[in-house]
Amino acid sequence: MAADAATATFRQRLAETARDVQALLDELLPSPETAQAPRLARAMRHAALNGGKRIRPFFVREAARLFGEDSALDARALRAGAALECLHCYSLVHDDLPAMDDDNLRRGQPTVHVAFDEATAILAGDALQALAFGILTDAATHPRAGVRAQLVAMLAHASGEAGMVGGQMRDLQAEQQRIDNEHEIVAIQRLKTGALFDFALRAGGVLAEADEDDLARLGAYAQAVGLAFQIADDILDVEATAEELGKTPGKDAAAGKATFVDLLGLDGARTKAAELVEQARDALSSYGDRADVLRAAARFIIDRRG
Amino acid sequence: MAADAATATFRQRLAETARDVQALLDELLPSPETAQAPRLARAMRHAALNGGKRIRPFFVREAARLFGEDSALDARALRAGAALECLHCYSLVHDDLPAMDDDNLRRGQPTVHVAFDEATAILAGDALQALAFGILTDAATHPRAGVRAQLVAMLAHASGEAGMVGGQMRDLQAEQQRIDNEHEIVAIQRLKTGALFDFALRAGGVLAEADEDDLARLGAYAQAVGLAFQIADDILDVEATAEELGKTPGKDAAAGKATFVDLLGLDGARTKAAELVEQARDALSSYGDRADVLRAAARFIIDRRG
Repeated sequence: MAADAATATFRQRLAETARDVQALLDELLPSPETAQAPRLARAMRHAALNGGKRIRPFFVREAARLFGEDSALDARALRAGAALECLHCYSLVHDDLPAMDDDNLRRGQPTVHVAFDEATAILAGDALQALAFGILTDAATHPRAGVRAQLVAMLAHASGEAGMVGGQMRDLQAEQQRIDNEHEIVAIQRLKTGALFDFALRAGGVLAEADEDDLARLGAYAQAVGLAFQIADDILDVEATAEELGKTPGKDAAAGKATFVDLLGLDGARTKAAELVEQARDALSSYGDRADVLRAAARFIIDRRG
Repeated sequence: MAADAATATFRQRLAETARDVQALLDELLPSPETAQAPRLARAMRHAALNGGKRIRPFFVREAARLFGEDSALDARALRAGAALECLHCYSLVHDDLPAMDDDNLRRGQPTVHVAFDEATAILAGDALQALAFGILTDAATHPRAGVRAQLVAMLAHASGEAGMVGGQMRDLQAEQQRIDNEHEIVAIQRLKTGALFDFALRAGGVLAEADEDDLARLGAYAQAVGLAFQIADDILDVEATAEELGKTPGKDAAAGKATFVDLLGLDGARTKAAELVEQARDALSSYGDRADVLRAAARFIIDRRG
C-alpha cells in the first residue's frame, strides 16, 4: 500500500473504532435507568463516553488484524479494546482529582469530580476498573477461558503497581522532587503510558492466538510508539491551544514536571520522536504490507494536533 | 460436633486464616525493595497487612472445605481469599479518604492517606484492586482457566456498580438525604457488604467445582450472615469503645447515616440479627456436621466486640 493510501485507511479505521467503541461502551456500561446506583452509572458514562481518539482499542483491533481478516476475531478485539478503554478512563478520572493533577477540563468537558463531586469520581473510577475486568472475562470476549484468563492477568499486571499505577506514583514523586534525568522520565513513561500500549498490541495477538515471537514484535512496536506518544504529548503541551487539546495546556510545565521538551529542547524532542516512529515501523517489518496501517498509525502519533 | 467444640474449632480456624492470609499477602504484595514504585508498595502493604479478622478469606476456605478436606483445594481457597482481601482493603482505603468517610484511624493505625497522603492512598487502592484480579488469574489459584475466569467475572460483578461500589455510592447519598427506610438500608447493605460475602462463600464452592444447588445454599448463608454482620456493626458503633473497635465509634450516627439501631432500636436490632443467624444456619442444614464451623461463625458475627 502506498503511504498516502495507508494513511487514509488508518484515518478511516481510527474513526470507525472510535464510533464502534462508543456504541459498545454505551451497551456495556450500566444504564442509569436500570443501575443499582444511577448517579454512579451517570458518572461512569460521563467518564467513558466523552469521545476521545480511542487509540488503544484501535491498536487491539489492528494487532489482531495482522493475523487474519476475520469478523469474529475483530468483534473480540473490539470488546478487549472497550475493556481497555474502561481501564484507561478510570485512570483519567483518578488522575484529574484535586489530590492528583487537579484538572477541571478533559476533552473539552468538565472532569468527573467537577461535573459530580470527588467521592463520586473516586467511586466511578473504581467501578470502571472492575467493569474492565468483567468485560474481559465475559465469554463473548473469547470462547476459550484460557485466553480470557490470560488477558485478565496481562491487564492486571499492566495497570497495577508494576505498570500504570506505579508510573503515576513515580510521576507524582518526580514532580515534587523536580527530577529531570532522561532515564527516570523514560522509566516513568514506560510504566504510566507504555504498559497499556503494550497490553493493547499484545492483547490483539493473544486474541488471535499468535505465537511468542509475534507477541515480542508487537511489544517492541508498542514500546516505541508509547514513548513517541508521550514525547508528542509533551510537545503538544507546549505548542497547542486549549481548544485543540480539550484541556489546559502548559499545566505540566507549571506543575514542575520535567518533560521531554525540557530535557531535549523542542527540536531534540521532535527528532527523538521521529526516531522512535522509525523503530516502531521496523519492529513490524516481517508482516509486509499487512502492517501498513499500524505503520501509518505510528506516524500519526507524532503528527497529531490534539 | 457439640456447639462448644464447633465454636472452639471456629476460633482456631479464624486465627489460622488470619495468620495464613497475612503470610500469603506478604508474599504476593510488591516488596518495597524490588517494586517499581517503592512508596506505593509501602502504602499497599500498610493497607493490606494491618491485621484484621480476615473473615472473608475464612469464609472462602470454609465453604471450600464443605466439599472435601483437601490440602490443594485449601491452598487455592486461601489464594482466592487473599485476592478478596486485597479487594476489601482497597475499598477501605478509598472509603477512608477525606472526600468519602474522612477517617483517620483504621484497626488502631493511621489510615493510608494519613500515614502517606491522599494521592498515594488513591493509587494504593487502585493498585490493590488490580492485584486482586491478578492473584485470581494466576494458575496457582486453580489449574482450570475456566474456574479462574469465573472467579474474575464473579468478583468484577460483586465489586462493581451492581455490587460494593454501587452500595457505597448509595450509602453516601442516603447520608446526604437522611434516608431512613428499612428497605433502602437493607438494599444498600446487600450491595456494600453483602456482595463480597456472597463472593466469598460462592468462590469456595466454585473452587471445589460444587453444583448450582450448593452455590445457591452458600449464597443464602452469605446473604443472611452479611446482613447480620452489618447490623452487628451498627450495634458496635453505638456500644463499643474506640479501643475495642480500632476506629472512631459513633461516627455513623454523627454523619447522619441511618443505621439499623436507629430503625429498630438496640433490642430490635439484636433480635433481627439473631433471626438472621438462624436463617444462615438453616441454609446449610443439608451439610450436617460438616457445616458446624460455618454455623459457629454465623453466631460469632453477632457476638463479637470489635
